[in-house]
Amino acid sequence: MALLVQKYGGTSVGTVERIKGVAEKVKAFREQGNDMVIVVSAMSGETNRMLELANSVSKSPSPREMDVLLTTGEQTTIALLSMALNEAGCPAVSYTGAQVRILTDSAFGKARIREIDESNIKAELAAGKVVIVAGFQGIDEQGNITTLGRGGSDTTGVALAAALKADECQIYTDVDGVYTTDPRVVAKARRMDKITFEEMLEMASLGSKVLQIRAVEFAGKYNVPLRVLHSVQEGPGTLITVEDDSQMEQPIISGIAFNRDEAKLTVLGVPDIPGVASRILGPISAINVEVDMIVQNVAQDNTTDFTFTVNRTEYEKAKKALEQVANELGAREVVGDSKIAKVSIVGVGMRSHAGVASKMFDTLAKESINIQMISTSEIKISVVVDEKYLELAVRALHTAFDLDVEE
Amino acid sequence: MALLVQKYGGTSVGTVERIKGVAEKVKAFREQGNDMVIVVSAMSGETNRMLELANSVSKSPSPREMDVLLTTGEQTTIALLSMALNEAGCPAVSYTGAQVRILTDSAFGKARIREIDESNIKAELAAGKVVIVAGFQGIDEQGNITTLGRGGSDTTGVALAAALKADECQIYTDVDGVYTTDPRVVAKARRMDKITFEEMLEMASLGSKVLQIRAVEFAGKYNVPLRVLHSVQEGPGTLITVEDDSQMEQPIISGIAFNRDEAKLTVLGVPDIPGVASRILGPISAINVEVDMIVQNVAQDNTTDFTFTVNRTEYEKAKKALEQVANELGAREVVGDSKIAKVSIVGVGMRSHAGVASKMFDTLAKESINIQMISTSEIKISVVVDEKYLELAVRALHTAFDLDVEE
Repeated sequence: MALLVQKYGGTSVGTVERIKGVAEKVKAFREQGNDMVIVVSAMSGETNRMLELANSVSKSPSPREMDVLLTTGEQTTIALLSMALNEAGCPAVSYTGAQVRILTDSAFGKARIREIDESNIKAELAAGKVVIVAGFQGIDEQGNITTLGRGGSDTTGVALAAALKADECQIYTDVDGVYTTDPRVVAKARRMDKITFEEMLEMASLGSKVLQIRAVEFAGKYNVPLRVLHSVQEGPGTLITVEDDSQMEQPIISGIAFNRDEAKLTVLGVPDIPGVASRILGPISAINVEVDMIVQNVAQDNTTDFTFTVNRTEYEKAKKALEQVANELGAREVVGDSKIAKVSIVGVGMRSHAGVASKMFDTLAKESINIQMISTSEIKISVVVDEKYLELAVRALHTAFDLDVEE
Repeated sequence: MALLVQKYGGTSVGTVERIKGVAEKVKAFREQGNDMVIVVSAMSGETNRMLELANSVSKSPSPREMDVLLTTGEQTTIALLSMALNEAGCPAVSYTGAQVRILTDSAFGKARIREIDESNIKAELAAGKVVIVAGFQGIDEQGNITTLGRGGSDTTGVALAAALKADECQIYTDVDGVYTTDPRVVAKARRMDKITFEEMLEMASLGSKVLQIRAVEFAGKYNVPLRVLHSVQEGPGTLITVEDDSQMEQPIISGIAFNRDEAKLTVLGVPDIPGVASRILGPISAINVEVDMIVQNVAQDNTTDFTFTVNRTEYEKAKKALEQVANELGAREVVGDSKIAKVSIVGVGMRSHAGVASKMFDTLAKESINIQMISTSEIKISVVVDEKYLELAVRALHTAFDLDVEE
């Protein structure tokens, strides 16, 4: 007997047959005595179909109207899933974001949740019904329809779980959990039973696209136990929760994340004067290019080298802007490389273990992989290497930190 | 400078190109200085697509959830039309039924409008915007999404026009107005410039499917001038309004309606006792069969014959129920005929003209058409004839009552 919030993504509800399958699954949970709140996305393909419609009507569709359009996707799914549950003899009722009253700000297309009125849902649960809620959508103070941005259904699930004080928020996906690294790169990658919010954030932001970062942040903030599960295969999935102090032996490293979507840019010979970093990054930010890693070496001869990474698709744009800045600053040269990859080891365990960094660098050195940049945080060490060494680096580190699945 | 409510049906907004066409049309009205409120239906085909989805999920989909599903259709259209108008440089904003707050009762699938909050729309108009409203939908006191039933978008248009005290409610359709009879049957049928609400009601209920009956009733009740126009071709259409007393010479008959979807059923030799009509019709109504014409002849030998018409698709069902009733009542026999047609002449002018009925019967007699049933109202005379004479009857009456287009 628990209150569970479950979220099913677009693929899990992508066809009528799959919707019926989800209904059967939910019904089984309900029959075990659980109170069930189900958050669903638009059927896969629907969002793209609507984006195409919008783009054929307008070159730059009004963001307000785009949200009115896109929210029809989840509204369709909640109605169909509710019908399927009722058909299966399991009383259910659907709610749009506006009907729940998921109050957001007015940032169309990327709204943030301000408040959730949980009274309607609680009353329906008390009446014995499964409550189906449209993910990804809300309503602002003025009654305008808003969306939380792509993938926002995860956030809806977590926010509802927080508001309802649910026992667990279960995110059904097309993977059976969070892995120590990408199994397509390392065959010996292992599913984790548990991972902390912090670790998951580092894994997610580094390219393990299992969960939306915002949803993980939200879950961490309100301490909502979050579980990632496969929507078809049976299994315990991975529980994302607070650090478990009771566990005597904590693994030093939980997982290895990587990202090959980045490019690096370096301004060589920048005068080493205060404010130079913001003068370099200001114009980059002004053209809406997001910067990831930033490294500045100590000065020599009153000049320094300033390096940062950007998304590879924005490399040329950023380089052009940077060349102008470099010129204004009297810097020597701008160099860059778009054939790089970032590899990170992540783990709350590293806080209490010395020597993690040196073990990492050592492992890479043994494979003759040259490290181009290093950046560290409390629970993460990231290095930039030549793209061609990515797989080798990840595999070597996976083995070195005892993450390989036991034979 | 007027406040116009325009309604565009599913065919008029059936493709992206047509939506752009509607946007151009609306923009032109706006640029002439009119305040514009636009009501739209779902793109043609969408509603059927959704009904199929629902039926593949559930044999008897929950009516509440069906409305949640179906209302996504108009929500899609309002967003696209609003985008198209904004793209064309004409500021516009969309409203769902819930956002306007079109308050209805809770009869899912056939809700009736209780109240419209016009404040939001008025504020948007004052701000210079074209307001696009989703037809066919509303919301009940509890916040449940409701629909007004198929074709309910006309009703939305009229109700909004009434609430906003609009100068005219213009219904764009695939015909260029209301005709004296169906032009496919009578080549000389003439478009009427004007017709009264009462006449339009009789025409509509008798099979001229240009406008929803409810919309005409609503328009009559609140005295909203209603105009039927072609969504592509230019032209004045037909104005439906109150009776114009200033017109010296009123045509006796405005139009000729007909219906070949009916079947007649007769119970012969019913004991002529009080309450027999309700004992016959009660069981018919109990199985949800709607009855149209009812005729009972004077009694002979203490028995009478009772005849009524039903929709042809329900003929067998009604006949079966009727046979049981006849048995219980001790009636002699049940006979029926599904090969009939109803022809009606309609006109407010007949109130003040004697001899209309005899002229009608005379005209039919000259063509050797036997009249099987007769039923009359203040502004209408209907007869039932053998189906094979339908076209002949309509053409003869059209000529006899001077309705033919002038050569």
